[in-house]
Amino acid sequence: MSKLRLEAWLLEIPLKEPFRIALGTSTVSRNIVVRLVGEDGIAGWGEASPSKKVLNETIEDVIDTLTKFVGGIDIDYTSVERIYEFLGSFEGAPSAKAALDMALLDLYAKNLGKPLWRVIGGYRESVETDITIGIMEPEEQAKRAVKYVEEGFRALKLKLGLEPEKDVERVRAVRDAVGEGIKIRVDANQGWSVEEAKWVIDRITSYDVELVEQPVRWDDLEGMREVRRESPVPIAADESVKTPSDALRVAEMDAADIINIKLMKSRGILGALRIAAISEAAGIKNMIGCMGESRLGITAGVHVAQAVRNIVVYDLDADLLQAEEVFSGGASIERGVRRVEDVPGLGNFEVNEKYMKKII
Amino acid sequence: MSKLRLEAWLLEIPLKEPFRIALGTSTVSRNIVVRLVGEDGIAGWGEASPSKKVLNETIEDVIDTLTKFVGGIDIDYTSVERIYEFLGSFEGAPSAKAALDMALLDLYAKNLGKPLWRVIGGYRESVETDITIGIMEPEEQAKRAVKYVEEGFRALKLKLGLEPEKDVERVRAVRDAVGEGIKIRVDANQGWSVEEAKWVIDRITSYDVELVEQPVRWDDLEGMREVRRESPVPIAADESVKTPSDALRVAEMDAADIINIKLMKSRGILGALRIAAISEAAGIKNMIGCMGESRLGITAGVHVAQAVRNIVVYDLDADLLQAEEVFSGGASIERGVRRVEDVPGLGNFEVNEKYMKKII
Repeated sequence: MSKLRLEAWLLEIPLKEPFRIALGTSTVSRNIVVRLVGEDGIAGWGEASPSKKVLNETIEDVIDTLTKFVGGIDIDYTSVERIYEFLGSFEGAPSAKAALDMALLDLYAKNLGKPLWRVIGGYRESVETDITIGIMEPEEQAKRAVKYVEEGFRALKLKLGLEPEKDVERVRAVRDAVGEGIKIRVDANQGWSVEEAKWVIDRITSYDVELVEQPVRWDDLEGMREVRRESPVPIAADESVKTPSDALRVAEMDAADIINIKLMKSRGILGALRIAAISEAAGIKNMIGCMGESRLGITAGVHVAQAVRNIVVYDLDADLLQAEEVFSGGASIERGVRRVEDVPGLGNFEVNEKYMKKII
Repeated sequence: MSKLRLEAWLLEIPLKEPFRIALGTSTVSRNIVVRLVGEDGIAGWGEASPSKKVLNETIEDVIDTLTKFVGGIDIDYTSVERIYEFLGSFEGAPSAKAALDMALLDLYAKNLGKPLWRVIGGYRESVETDITIGIMEPEEQAKRAVKYVEEGFRALKLKLGLEPEKDVERVRAVRDAVGEGIKIRVDANQGWSVEEAKWVIDRITSYDVELVEQPVRWDDLEGMREVRRESPVPIAADESVKTPSDALRVAEMDAADIINIKLMKSRGILGALRIAAISEAAGIKNMIGCMGESRLGITAGVHVAQAVRNIVVYDLDADLLQAEEVFSGGASIERGVRRVEDVPGLGNFEVNEKYMKKII
């Protein structure tokens, strides 16, 4: 048992360009960074990137949740089951819980003297992420696609979901521009009706699309199952699966081929590992994605991605869309390949304080 | 990556007295002990206790499975996901896989320098096991019950399932003999029909029974659900759930309140952890039981029991019913309380070779 002191910062990072998806447009990532410091000075880092649209939480909700712990946290961070119990023991913003989970698991792995990914699974040395292209005109998406391929990315994720006919054009334009051999994933972010989804998928199939993410509303699992039944392209559930019990429900309903895990949705790494275990038992593969995390939160995602065999699709790119690096250290990126540092815990982070404001 | 040499022994341990359950009677535990030895001399221990009735495997099947690996095993035992992948990569007797899983996880934890339970969950310092009383005349079961309570056990598991009317008498006789404050669990081992199960449960409810295990045939999940719907006593699935995908199915069907995990059924510790994750997400509690393991295999069960929060009922007693201690070290027993040693890996085992015959 160890008393941990909580520190927190508000982080505001401008994006390189406005990022438009079916749920809205953003120009900035507003996150909260937490640090838990033990009496012996050992520190664990975590990050919350809240989502109003997906998780119904605001940055203020995250701050309110963390404020419960201004007096510190009494916890045995050498026990992952105690950590998971703690996270379930209070009401709070999902992404605030994710930040605390990350910081506690950072401490857990530091205590074992190993990089986190090695002690929670240890499956692979690196992962190849896609990079995401927001909704824009087809020729603009194609231009971005070419640029990213030139930078070395071999998988692209296209945001769709607002205009079925133009969505088909977008996929065609990007495939024509990048040629064969580059993976194209598309994400409708709930934007289509069941009929629209079927109509679009029917037409984009010939452009070699790897998967279609969240074609219909998050709560329409029957609709998603219906789309899936007719789709030659695998269907991935994103907004439909936040927690392990959501994953059970999608498995029961046979509503998806793939479940997209995000640490913000799952309340952190331990929830993510449970979703992966459920998916694996159900014969469903996992993808891992992100909200608007900086390098810090993305690094936690890369640890999970490197750890777990069942996670086979990687969409860990939010920090790459940001205009500034707030953290150095953590997961590197080189021609689409991400890899965590070979140091205990999550990584050796160095902070650029220009974008951070201490709040706790 | 490390090449591990495999050693194996046939173990035959007489029981203190014949052990009768609805599936048959046994007088001896016939198990296989394995040891995996690295090039650096580090060794991991595991045990297979095969079950013809539950897992359709014989001791010969276990030996056949292990014989595949006489040339050694190439595996990175610092990766639990690589271990799980390896266990799924060949056909073989479930309990042989469990023995290899144990030995590999023993090495995994030794490499981290921690007791296994601490690195796979770390939830509790000890567990209180029941002790099992085979099928015999009601007054005989009551006599055993009194003796065990005098020895300090505070939970008893009664084997039932062959004679509904006498089963009610058995529970009554034991409750009358031990009084209040002692937990009584009963296990029909698939012996009742749905109607018999309802009839018996209706009558034993007044004797404060904690749970009823596997009332009906393993493959009759609808029958089990029907029994459960009317039962005021929680229903535990045992033979119905061997693997993580079986656990998913029971969760989908709402067929049980509790799932009994056994390392021999789950092909080892990693399968057990997955079943626990699925159960937890479904709101189902776990029990942990055993086949006929000696102290070695039971110790692996105690590690899992101490690790996982969702495992709340403990039936880890097979070694206590055996006439001889083949292993010293491992999980201790004192007035029903079991606790593993505070040493890296599974434990510091010392072998009594009188009952062991080297086979590989």
